[in-house]
Amino acid sequence: MMTPKHPSESLTVLTDLVLPSETNHLNNLFGGELLARMDRAASIAAQRHSRNICVTASVNHVAFTKAIPLGSVVTVEAKVSRSFNSSMEIYIDVWIEDRSSGNKTKTMEAIYTFVAVDATGKPVEVPPIVPQTELEQQRYDAALRRKQLSLVLAGKMKPSEATELKALFIGE
Amino acid sequence: MMTPKHPSESLTVLTDLVLPSETNHLNNLFGGELLARMDRAASIAAQRHSRNICVTASVNHVAFTKAIPLGSVVTVEAKVSRSFNSSMEIYIDVWIEDRSSGNKTKTMEAIYTFVAVDATGKPVEVPPIVPQTELEQQRYDAALRRKQLSLVLAGKMKPSEATELKALFIGE
Amino acid sequence: MMTPKHPSESLTVLTDLVLPSETNHLNNLFGGELLARMDRAASIAAQRHSRNICVTASVNHVAFTKAIPLGSVVTVEAKVSRSFNSSMEIYIDVWIEDRSSGNKTKTMEAIYTFVAVDATGKPVEVPPIVPQTELEQQRYDAALRRKQLSLVLAGKMKPSEATELKALFIGE
Amino acid sequence: MMTPKHPSESLTVLTDLVLPSETNHLNNLFGGELLARMDRAASIAAQRHSRNICVTASVNHVAFTKAIPLGSVVTVEAKVSRSFNSSMEIYIDVWIEDRSSGNKTKTMEAIYTFVAVDATGKPVEVPPIVPQTELEQQRYDAALRRKQLSLVLAGKMKPSEATELKALFIGE
Amino acid sequence: MMTPKHPSESLTVLTDLVLPSETNHLNNLFGGELLARMDRAASIAAQRHSRNICVTASVNHVAFTKAIPLGSVVTVEAKVSRSFNSSMEIYIDVWIEDRSSGNKTKTMEAIYTFVAVDATGKPVEVPPIVPQTELEQQRYDAALRRKQLSLVLAGKMKPSEATELKALFIGE
Amino acid sequence: MMTPKHPSESLTVLTDLVLPSETNHLNNLFGGELLARMDRAASIAAQRHSRNICVTASVNHVAFTKAIPLGSVVTVEAKVSRSFNSSMEIYIDVWIEDRSSGNKTKTMEAIYTFVAVDATGKPVEVPPIVPQTELEQQRYDAALRRKQLSLVLAGKMKPSEATELKALFIGE
Repeated sequence: MMTPKHPSESLTVLTDLVLPSETNHLNNLFGGELLARMDRAASIAAQRHSRNICVTASVNHVAFTKAIPLGSVVTVEAKVSRSFNSSMEIYIDVWIEDRSSGNKTKTMEAIYTFVAVDATGKPVEVPPIVPQTELEQQRYDAALRRKQLSLVLAGKMKPSEATELKALFIGE
Repeated sequence: MMTPKHPSESLTVLTDLVLPSETNHLNNLFGGELLARMDRAASIAAQRHSRNICVTASVNHVAFTKAIPLGSVVTVEAKVSRSFNSSMEIYIDVWIEDRSSGNKTKTMEAIYTFVAVDATGKPVEVPPIVPQTELEQQRYDAALRRKQLSLVLAGKMKPSEATELKALFIGE
Repeated sequence: MMTPKHPSESLTVLTDLVLPSETNHLNNLFGGELLARMDRAASIAAQRHSRNICVTASVNHVAFTKAIPLGSVVTVEAKVSRSFNSSMEIYIDVWIEDRSSGNKTKTMEAIYTFVAVDATGKPVEVPPIVPQTELEQQRYDAALRRKQLSLVLAGKMKPSEATELKALFIGE
Repeated sequence: MMTPKHPSESLTVLTDLVLPSETNHLNNLFGGELLARMDRAASIAAQRHSRNICVTASVNHVAFTKAIPLGSVVTVEAKVSRSFNSSMEIYIDVWIEDRSSGNKTKTMEAIYTFVAVDATGKPVEVPPIVPQTELEQQRYDAALRRKQLSLVLAGKMKPSEATELKALFIGE
Repeated sequence: MMTPKHPSESLTVLTDLVLPSETNHLNNLFGGELLARMDRAASIAAQRHSRNICVTASVNHVAFTKAIPLGSVVTVEAKVSRSFNSSMEIYIDVWIEDRSSGNKTKTMEAIYTFVAVDATGKPVEVPPIVPQTELEQQRYDAALRRKQLSLVLAGKMKPSEATELKALFIGE
Repeated sequence: MMTPKHPSESLTVLTDLVLPSETNHLNNLFGGELLARMDRAASIAAQRHSRNICVTASVNHVAFTKAIPLGSVVTVEAKVSRSFNSSMEIYIDVWIEDRSSGNKTKTMEAIYTFVAVDATGKPVEVPPIVPQTELEQQRYDAALRRKQLSLVLAGKMKPSEATELKALFIGE
């Protein structure tokens, strides 16, 4: 087995402005632009963990809860939350900061999945993850439920086998 | 109640090339660019259904199953699959076509949620949807399960109340 | 001779928003951006007809009759109107729609010419066109006059040989 | 009447590289990008002549005769060739140069029409043009024929009234 | 006097990929793109220090020592090194990392100057800087020499008054 | 020795509009965009002088003295001011013009250094420069002082050997 790594080893920070070319006609950051920006940060985090080329496998869930106005300073932080053979779940936190006060506000969380591949595009094994902080542990645990949910929804796992997930709906 | 509409009334087709400026270093369409392109098509479908300004609320799930090479002709088709008060689920099908044979291949499906807002950004009611084809009906039904799942995962609904979803894991 | 095709087989629809990065300083869609967008749609139509790589040969005439404001939904529809050996005339209709009423308005027509080439850039034969609707027939007929006009203006045909065109100015 | 100007007073030179983001999948400058680049240069020439805001009215004819490869140095030269009330015909020459020899080659000519407008978008009068060189005189004369042709094709002038143009087909 | 701040309070990290649209025809990051990327990071650092809008005043010196190939992960780190009334010197370090080994290499340093302004564009006072690390102290000291050099070269200070700088050339 | 050239032989003029996608949130041309635009013009000037591929070596000094608003016509003029073995100093003047009056105003000067390389990236010799105008002569002379200053600051020349520069601070 490959030597395990910590989530912090893949931490990728992309702080950038919201420019006019990235806004919609309400003068807020265009949803699609933010998806693209998170995708680039997440692909770097996946590459830092796997040390291989990584391609986007899925965007699991992204909720846009607040508009991000033109001129904002946006910080995208991406970290591997869990790995499965050749795939990695990347957890992304997005912050904006107020210019006058300097206060940072979390505006969204997103989860992407990447697969590490070799030069021919064939999936390759990636190191396991060992969470260190409490938050990393929570996200690590939840990643398994999300993985099962994804398999169930894709018809690749029977609901009855999704033990982690089932517990959520049935209780104990 | 507002007059119901059919999914076909919001059908939006965005056929475009994959240009060099949209590719990653494997010469395939960059994941983030496709997310942005789908977001634009979906926002038009939402606007056609609601006749109001629409903003991205969430990207529910997007699976990238195959690479889309430079120069491909990509067709993004977006249609409202179900509406809930002021929100709409948009179902997106993505096709690429082979130049020599003209054959079209489905390369992915994606689901986005948009909210209709007025000029001040306040959510406004949108018309209900009446599916017409069998596929539209299936997507309409599944949209409710996805809605419940989203509420459960966000902690806004108890798993026990997610009747549609619960059935999936418990069976009858 | 190659099997003829109908114009509808090459129909290409590109519906997209007008984004801030595509506007001029009057907040309308920049002329050059629309020319580029039509060029992409037309090149796909040409490729669908010829099943070969197609390169822009000329932009015959484009009249910008009305400004297209930021945030508009613009639909570009491109179809092969006539083919000549290895070249194809592509007829493009551009529509914008009103968000509140959903009404579509034709804002412009444009005509581009493309040439089908092989991998070495050498022109290759393309299928003939058989128009089906009355409008397609009109555009098919006019394409010959435009072709002659283009040859006359380029000094490659004597005005006296441009029979279709001559009739227009002399009458009978 | 406004004080006449010379074509040279509106000469606009835009020399720039062909960057990877502007190429098609044959690694040549994308037709649409060149159309956009010419549109920007032409709009500056029109503004220099009229000293007012100018909007694209039409692209009269553009023939792409040779591919312009990635990395080329492209020079776009735009000059007003004739003016009519509030509209101006802009004649554009495009050159590429060989890096090793420094030789410049004309790769295309294009003709755009712009209209000068005030802040409310209403057309305003522009100065007449007085050609100085032989080439400027030829283009000035031909501009009238093109103007008549455009009016005839748009159904706004009877062919019999297009005296300049008619001569071309009938001769005397 | 305003409360002093530490350089670390303005630290801005912008990690991003080199995309095809940002490369020159040697497939390396285009110089101009890197200048733009550093400008954005530096403007955020200046804003974090001053809590006001900041505009680029000058690029003092940037040396490109190594090509940065397509697909590289580039980290731009910007920090305020010294402030003068309303202007701030921003010191920028650029790193690339090797995918296989994960090793980071410094590829360049750059120095930009920004001015903090109010909503009307008038310069406003910014907090002084108190360096904490040895490197920050060195850059803080050198900033004064650069400031004097800049004033001398602009003819706004007599060489004889540039005491810090003079010492460099005369020795003691 | 290679045949000397005049600065005018490398003159490169890039006149273009300031588009919305190139502005910051004050609606002025973004500093980074202007840096990129000057870099492209300068690289063409370097190529015209050397007839080889040229890569950016450094940006020596750029002072942004006034904001350039959206919609401005910006003219970038780049010329080789002096050459040293395989490197060239490029002097850049930037002008904007007033639409109503047509008056041109110098808004900035910038100095970039480029190196000519062969296909493998190895530096190659470039022709010497013979200035013709008084301004070209001044810039030619000052280029040597800037070269020495750059070497001193990089620790590659002892201040005592920088004869041209030393005179500036000591006088005689």
